[in-house]
Amino acid sequence: MKTYELIDKPGLESLAIVERPVPVPGPHRVVVRMRAASLNYRDLVVAQGRYGGKNSVGLTPLSDGAGEVTAIGDGVTRVKPGDRVAGIFMQTYLAGGLTAEKSASALGGAISGVLSEYVEFDEDGVVRIPEHLSYEEAATLPCAAVTAWNALVAEGGVKPGDTVLLQGTGGVSIFSLQFAKVTGARVIITSSSDEKLERARQLGADETINYKTNPKWEQAAWDLSGKRGVDIVIETGGSGTLNKSLRAVRPGGRISLMGTLSGTGGEVTTAYILQKHIRLQGIYVGSRDLFEDMNRAISQHQIRPVIDRVFDFGQARDAYAYLESGAHFGKVVISI
Amino acid sequence: MKTYELIDKPGLESLAIVERPVPVPGPHRVVVRMRAASLNYRDLVVAQGRYGGKNSVGLTPLSDGAGEVTAIGDGVTRVKPGDRVAGIFMQTYLAGGLTAEKSASALGGAISGVLSEYVEFDEDGVVRIPEHLSYEEAATLPCAAVTAWNALVAEGGVKPGDTVLLQGTGGVSIFSLQFAKVTGARVIITSSSDEKLERARQLGADETINYKTNPKWEQAAWDLSGKRGVDIVIETGGSGTLNKSLRAVRPGGRISLMGTLSGTGGEVTTAYILQKHIRLQGIYVGSRDLFEDMNRAISQHQIRPVIDRVFDFGQARDAYAYLESGAHFGKVVISI
Amino acid sequence: MKTYELIDKPGLESLAIVERPVPVPGPHRVVVRMRAASLNYRDLVVAQGRYGGKNSVGLTPLSDGAGEVTAIGDGVTRVKPGDRVAGIFMQTYLAGGLTAEKSASALGGAISGVLSEYVEFDEDGVVRIPEHLSYEEAATLPCAAVTAWNALVAEGGVKPGDTVLLQGTGGVSIFSLQFAKVTGARVIITSSSDEKLERARQLGADETINYKTNPKWEQAAWDLSGKRGVDIVIETGGSGTLNKSLRAVRPGGRISLMGTLSGTGGEVTTAYILQKHIRLQGIYVGSRDLFEDMNRAISQHQIRPVIDRVFDFGQARDAYAYLESGAHFGKVVISI
Amino acid sequence: MKTYELIDKPGLESLAIVERPVPVPGPHRVVVRMRAASLNYRDLVVAQGRYGGKNSVGLTPLSDGAGEVTAIGDGVTRVKPGDRVAGIFMQTYLAGGLTAEKSASALGGAISGVLSEYVEFDEDGVVRIPEHLSYEEAATLPCAAVTAWNALVAEGGVKPGDTVLLQGTGGVSIFSLQFAKVTGARVIITSSSDEKLERARQLGADETINYKTNPKWEQAAWDLSGKRGVDIVIETGGSGTLNKSLRAVRPGGRISLMGTLSGTGGEVTTAYILQKHIRLQGIYVGSRDLFEDMNRAISQHQIRPVIDRVFDFGQARDAYAYLESGAHFGKVVISI
Repeated sequence: MKTYELIDKPGLESLAIVERPVPVPGPHRVVVRMRAASLNYRDLVVAQGRYGGKNSVGLTPLSDGAGEVTAIGDGVTRVKPGDRVAGIFMQTYLAGGLTAEKSASALGGAISGVLSEYVEFDEDGVVRIPEHLSYEEAATLPCAAVTAWNALVAEGGVKPGDTVLLQGTGGVSIFSLQFAKVTGARVIITSSSDEKLERARQLGADETINYKTNPKWEQAAWDLSGKRGVDIVIETGGSGTLNKSLRAVRPGGRISLMGTLSGTGGEVTTAYILQKHIRLQGIYVGSRDLFEDMNRAISQHQIRPVIDRVFDFGQARDAYAYLESGAHFGKVVISI
Repeated sequence: MKTYELIDKPGLESLAIVERPVPVPGPHRVVVRMRAASLNYRDLVVAQGRYGGKNSVGLTPLSDGAGEVTAIGDGVTRVKPGDRVAGIFMQTYLAGGLTAEKSASALGGAISGVLSEYVEFDEDGVVRIPEHLSYEEAATLPCAAVTAWNALVAEGGVKPGDTVLLQGTGGVSIFSLQFAKVTGARVIITSSSDEKLERARQLGADETINYKTNPKWEQAAWDLSGKRGVDIVIETGGSGTLNKSLRAVRPGGRISLMGTLSGTGGEVTTAYILQKHIRLQGIYVGSRDLFEDMNRAISQHQIRPVIDRVFDFGQARDAYAYLESGAHFGKVVISI
Repeated sequence: MKTYELIDKPGLESLAIVERPVPVPGPHRVVVRMRAASLNYRDLVVAQGRYGGKNSVGLTPLSDGAGEVTAIGDGVTRVKPGDRVAGIFMQTYLAGGLTAEKSASALGGAISGVLSEYVEFDEDGVVRIPEHLSYEEAATLPCAAVTAWNALVAEGGVKPGDTVLLQGTGGVSIFSLQFAKVTGARVIITSSSDEKLERARQLGADETINYKTNPKWEQAAWDLSGKRGVDIVIETGGSGTLNKSLRAVRPGGRISLMGTLSGTGGEVTTAYILQKHIRLQGIYVGSRDLFEDMNRAISQHQIRPVIDRVFDFGQARDAYAYLESGAHFGKVVISI
Repeated sequence: MKTYELIDKPGLESLAIVERPVPVPGPHRVVVRMRAASLNYRDLVVAQGRYGGKNSVGLTPLSDGAGEVTAIGDGVTRVKPGDRVAGIFMQTYLAGGLTAEKSASALGGAISGVLSEYVEFDEDGVVRIPEHLSYEEAATLPCAAVTAWNALVAEGGVKPGDTVLLQGTGGVSIFSLQFAKVTGARVIITSSSDEKLERARQLGADETINYKTNPKWEQAAWDLSGKRGVDIVIETGGSGTLNKSLRAVRPGGRISLMGTLSGTGGEVTTAYILQKHIRLQGIYVGSRDLFEDMNRAISQHQIRPVIDRVFDFGQARDAYAYLESGAHFGKVVISI
């Protein structure tokens, strides 16, 4: 079978297709014929060998993919050949709180990922995908969609009538927009592109702010919240925007922090956090339980992930480059 | 001014209009010209002198009403004359958990209520009503709607993709239906009337069960949940239906218990509660904070309370009798 | 090896030692030389073939046991030979909420248990036991102690200054007493025996009530709470006592329901639940995460489980009969 | 009566005693003869006119004080003359979540404070103090103790067996130490003084770190947690120490942020927050409900606040200077 690996050194130029034997599932293991994979910003960092101090050489990249179960090992009961499944981001994070042990099982980072024709998983490491989704669509769920669900619903505790502030139009933001709308929340979204803001509006965004033409977007968000402050911010920008989020959120509000687009640190006005009794919750994807809760919502509302562009299996490097350009709206997918 | 009182003994025949002076607001107090009031099952119990061991003689009945602020006392800052407001069910229950002290401030039970041309409240005891609602509509909110919001959203923790089971088509059930739909949940509702079920379907109910023609409705609900069990039951029936709810709910599920239509007690299969790790949460209306959260949701989604029938001020006894008949779908209102 | 089984029909007289081969661990599996097991009320019901409609014939009984890892299969990383471990009550309930799937993995009920010289577990199905505990002591933890921890700490949310009401002096109650004391709560405990109450006092109980000489113990508990109501009830009695607990608890209080000593159902005054906004939470043991949290507390405070009596391996039937007599204070253990 | 005011400009030199009439309580108001007040770091900032952009001229300083009710207005039911009470930090924050409106009622900042012989409060704005405490001791509770309780118990969710990391030996840290011990947690505390660490040990600290001789104290804390990470950090240092706290805490752990000793902002490694799924919760004191919960714990365990030094009423400036020096261990009090 064909699989991508970072063959000799970090960097996209080292990402290449190699030939490997199709895995044979051991007891309680399953093999999946992957049909699609999707990219996250994290995958750029991994490919560059900058992810958590690991150089990632020898690793198959990407955490997010979906396909069809082709073989199962002894004792498997959760799935059967022919089932349409996606791998879960952290293979041992089934439920409850995050632990170091669970973190160490993340696909396409801590362990090999899914940009491969066949991948072997523990039977506990996959979930069935919603019936109305194509493999390309389902491949976008494991990291970006579960992160958005965790940030907004599980940890965010969003409820109807809340005002949610979303930053940008990347994968997590667009999933957050879709989930916020079915939860009855009001959505304010930012972008540097009026065209992207218009697309967000078509997806249900109630208010839009162009942060390029309106650099004081935090003030605009505050005003749009009736000068009460927004209830929840999905902070995908990282430290570059966090101070503005701290201003835009209401006293007692919540900020779910999951992105580091602007780097891994920066100046933070901690005084706001305490004076406004703000909860700043780090979000690192989520458990299989959350994935399955989310799938029920996706199925019920027939939500379709927003895919910007699908690349062929041979064009993986182009897909990475396209993600890096920031031109996308929604997810970048590779067909396998 | 004209006001209703239970003039000499418990019982509806004792409910009559009397003449009283218009109240003058003291410091931090406001006077409201009531324009409409609505009835809850509790009001029948109060009128019959069976409510919490009190005979209620001398009391103005009803907890739920809306009107216009006509006068304010010294130091009032929360509202001004002309504001459209509703009284909160427990006048001192502003936020946080319930206490005995807060319980002792319930309108139309612990203290005099709102079936009156003018009522004096503490400025903390009223909330502004959503702009798109008429007084008749807003008068339905304080008890039934806040109870539904608390049961489903605050304590119920409903989220998109959840399946909610509603019992009957009284006020709390219909508000629960409306709130469940804007929260993205799937709704199963029961009634003894196919006509009422059809109306519930028009309001968004996903599945309906006629419990008269299908007495094993708990099994039907279980099947409709994909044999997984429903996530949340809004238990309005009380002990007569609780055992069925315990069967219909999933392991780890929640039952919000707020009604005693079938009495105040009964046989309960406690074994289900523990084996399925069920949370049975008593709901006694809710705080002003919840009322205001709910109003934001009602405004955003332009939800309109379902009113079955509006009676004239002089027809209060007829309104009580109509509620008692159980013929209603949604709320019974008295115009003042 | 020797192991107990219910050999031909339900009933204690059918419980006998049989000879079986020592298990050999498969991949990700471990074999434990059990050194002690402990009994719970549930085990009486299982032995009588009355547990969840199963007759339990062919099953090795008991859920709670501790021993030493003697062999590990391929890929095991969580434990190594020589480690002192206990099995977890539900073998697949590692974290998060309860599901039907997890319920179906309970030792000594849904699947074979631990009253055996050797038992094979999944590596995920065991936890290391606190160092200061003997095997006899550690054998008491999986069901009774985890149940108490879940009821009081995880779901009960006990905090310093809270008043906790405990019913009787069985295993769960005594663990609850020990955990309540290290959490800074005040404990009221009931029993029919002044001698047992005196022993509870020596373990730290602040107040004691003999429910035989004081049948209105719910009123006594209310008075001892300063007429404010107790914050948390650990309801081990089941429906026979639940109505009294509903009276003793404060508005907004919690009742953790985990026992069915008095049967599996009964008359419940549901009106109290709603009027006092009570949370009645069913407790079915708990997850491995909770077990490990609890072990940290046990280790830090050098808590020693209270063992009433230790029986020899050959005396298992006597141990069951002793538990059934109700004469015990704390746990009944079988040395293996 | 005598009262302190910032008489003409910001700065301690402007703090002086002035003569004012003894207040007469209006309806639902009470007058308290203050007997003691205590200082918090915030009071230095207020006196310097740097607090929230206010210059504070004309304001009576200090939020924390206790005394005896001497007069009550019409309709007061919560207290009576002779009752020993303390004012609550935010006069309208009775329960539930923080709002901008509640923030605007903070004593000695938003509104005049308690460094005065007599102070008038709303009856809702005081709580009865534990019987075993002197006025000097009770005067330390409203800000520092409630903050510690909120940070550790209410928002921190501390439980027995948890490891808590405390920074320094100021008021909030020492209250946190006392509360952590009665909750059964293990305490690691830091200081630049071995003598202060020894005193902390006498109060129950399990582990101590001198951050001067051991600047990598976050690594020391990590090691002392068994390389698992601490469960909760009470972050009193502010941004100067926050990055170290982010390293010391376990995946899924909590940091309660309430101090700005090192300033109001700084560089924060946000990547840790998300990768470790950390909850960073700002703490701005807390509600009256929390104050009363805390008082129950203080009474039950006969906790005595640690007072470093008591100054006479005329020595208020000396008290401020002493607090600023950082020489204190526990609280600085002014007798009135």
